[in-house]
Amino acid sequence: MSDFERIQAARRRLAGRIHRTPVLHSRSLDEAAGAEVYCKAENLQRGGAFKIRGAMNRMLQLTPAERARGVVAFSSGNHAQAVALAARELGVSADLVMPADAPRLKLEAVRAFGGRVHLYDRAEQSREALAADLVEREGRVLVPPFDDAEIIAGQGTAALELLEEVPGLEALAVPVGGGGLIAGSALSAHAHNPQIAVYGIEPATAADAQLSLKLGRITAITENPTLADGLRTPQPGKLTFPIMQQHLRAIVTVTDEELLAAVRLLLLRMKTLVEPSGAAAAAAVIHGRITGHRRIGLILSGGNIDPTILTRALP
Amino acid sequence: MSDFERIQAARRRLAGRIHRTPVLHSRSLDEAAGAEVYCKAENLQRGGAFKIRGAMNRMLQLTPAERARGVVAFSSGNHAQAVALAARELGVSADLVMPADAPRLKLEAVRAFGGRVHLYDRAEQSREALAADLVEREGRVLVPPFDDAEIIAGQGTAALELLEEVPGLEALAVPVGGGGLIAGSALSAHAHNPQIAVYGIEPATAADAQLSLKLGRITAITENPTLADGLRTPQPGKLTFPIMQQHLRAIVTVTDEELLAAVRLLLLRMKTLVEPSGAAAAAAVIHGRITGHRRIGLILSGGNIDPTILTRALP
Repeated sequence: MSDFERIQAARRRLAGRIHRTPVLHSRSLDEAAGAEVYCKAENLQRGGAFKIRGAMNRMLQLTPAERARGVVAFSSGNHAQAVALAARELGVSADLVMPADAPRLKLEAVRAFGGRVHLYDRAEQSREALAADLVEREGRVLVPPFDDAEIIAGQGTAALELLEEVPGLEALAVPVGGGGLIAGSALSAHAHNPQIAVYGIEPATAADAQLSLKLGRITAITENPTLADGLRTPQPGKLTFPIMQQHLRAIVTVTDEELLAAVRLLLLRMKTLVEPSGAAAAAAVIHGRITGHRRIGLILSGGNIDPTILTRALP
Repeated sequence: MSDFERIQAARRRLAGRIHRTPVLHSRSLDEAAGAEVYCKAENLQRGGAFKIRGAMNRMLQLTPAERARGVVAFSSGNHAQAVALAARELGVSADLVMPADAPRLKLEAVRAFGGRVHLYDRAEQSREALAADLVEREGRVLVPPFDDAEIIAGQGTAALELLEEVPGLEALAVPVGGGGLIAGSALSAHAHNPQIAVYGIEPATAADAQLSLKLGRITAITENPTLADGLRTPQPGKLTFPIMQQHLRAIVTVTDEELLAAVRLLLLRMKTLVEPSGAAAAAAVIHGRITGHRRIGLILSGGNIDPTILTRALP
């Protein structure tokens, strides 16, 4: 099966289980960007982020025996919510390994979906080791956050919907964490039209994918302080990185101040709530990092913002 | 031409000039309401509210001579923005009579659209007299905020889109100011299906339409303090009131605290920014004012919220 056939299969599998999110367009944003900008509103997706696409696509392919044993995932945020939500819907038990300092709202959301939360101390414990223990001891299936062909295929369905709905896109801009969304989006875009320029966006202080592409090999960064908690992954994945190498025009970066300005513009002008990670692509087009295209598509990847951060974004 | 033919004509006239806004749905809201709830997101409409539908529909029917003379409107908020925006697009000059204490953001938005603002003192001056003077002296055409058949028809197109997109709606809930939106919505709903229960929503402290329906005649109220500045109109219109009498199941009311709670839930769970007036119908379904229906449609009528009010709505 080709990468694109896998994305098309994911789309059929997900139909009726997730929202077909709207594409938002506003002249305020066009004016700020100096181009026509079309925003795929995955902040309006179930669970408040695109993550349900990959998690649900992967979990719909569990065997009955695997379903009976349950799943495990490690994540500080939106992936944990997505796995818990998909698990509830499929009648599967879910263990989520989350840092003790994860945002209270995200912990509450995971528990509200019926997920069993295992807290760990970021400084003292390895979440991978904790998750591996649950996998080995209880036979649970790990649902990885990004480095999995079916996760990538699920995430690629968002760009597919955007490309079908808005004709003539010259460029596509997508936030980059571990690379699941950008990899799936790039595969969809170039299956649709090989000429589309695909851009990844990272925080300036967590630009591991940009560095890895420059050096030509997966490279971890150690310092990654940024408001964009969903984009703090220290390095790209083994599967996602070669896709980025093959498909991306460039990775561009944005500062935390630019992320907050984008959150504010999207909220007060476009009336939609986006978290800093989710606003990265919008920040890039607003602040002139992506130029030379008349019609740009981008993904608003999530809306699960902490109210204290939201208050900082207000005028 | 029947009322519904007028709405259909408005829809054809508006095609391509306004957004077809998305219908939002979230399980969080369903759980809070105890029913399936579908929200027509007119907060995502051009100008941030449904008002452009009526204003544009009316102004597209100006004669060349009327276009040359320009238009005038009085409004403290979203109608003024809509008239200024439509006027810019049609190459018509617009005079907007607005109170000196109107929210700064709304004054700025009107000016940004190229509207000429005439400030008046609420305590000392009559906006109707000021507007009438502009009409008489300069031959300008008044674009009324609600009490006009073409304004009502334009506003009715939002419910028409909602009804076509979501099959099987048993009830429709719509905020009530002067009555343009509820009148147009009710006409659309009952042309579509005479069985739909149509509810109007007013602030408890500005329930002039509820009182008028109870007394069987248009009745003005003098005290109308509420955060829902778009619903402060002191009495229903001569055209809108009989439509309400004929078509509404009931008018129900919500408090300012309930409006703020609805703004918060819509923002943090549904990720969409709605002003207090625009959240009235959502507040009514969340707080149990509308019961006995499995599938309810409602209109989120606007999103132009003052940032200080938004801050009050946050946890």
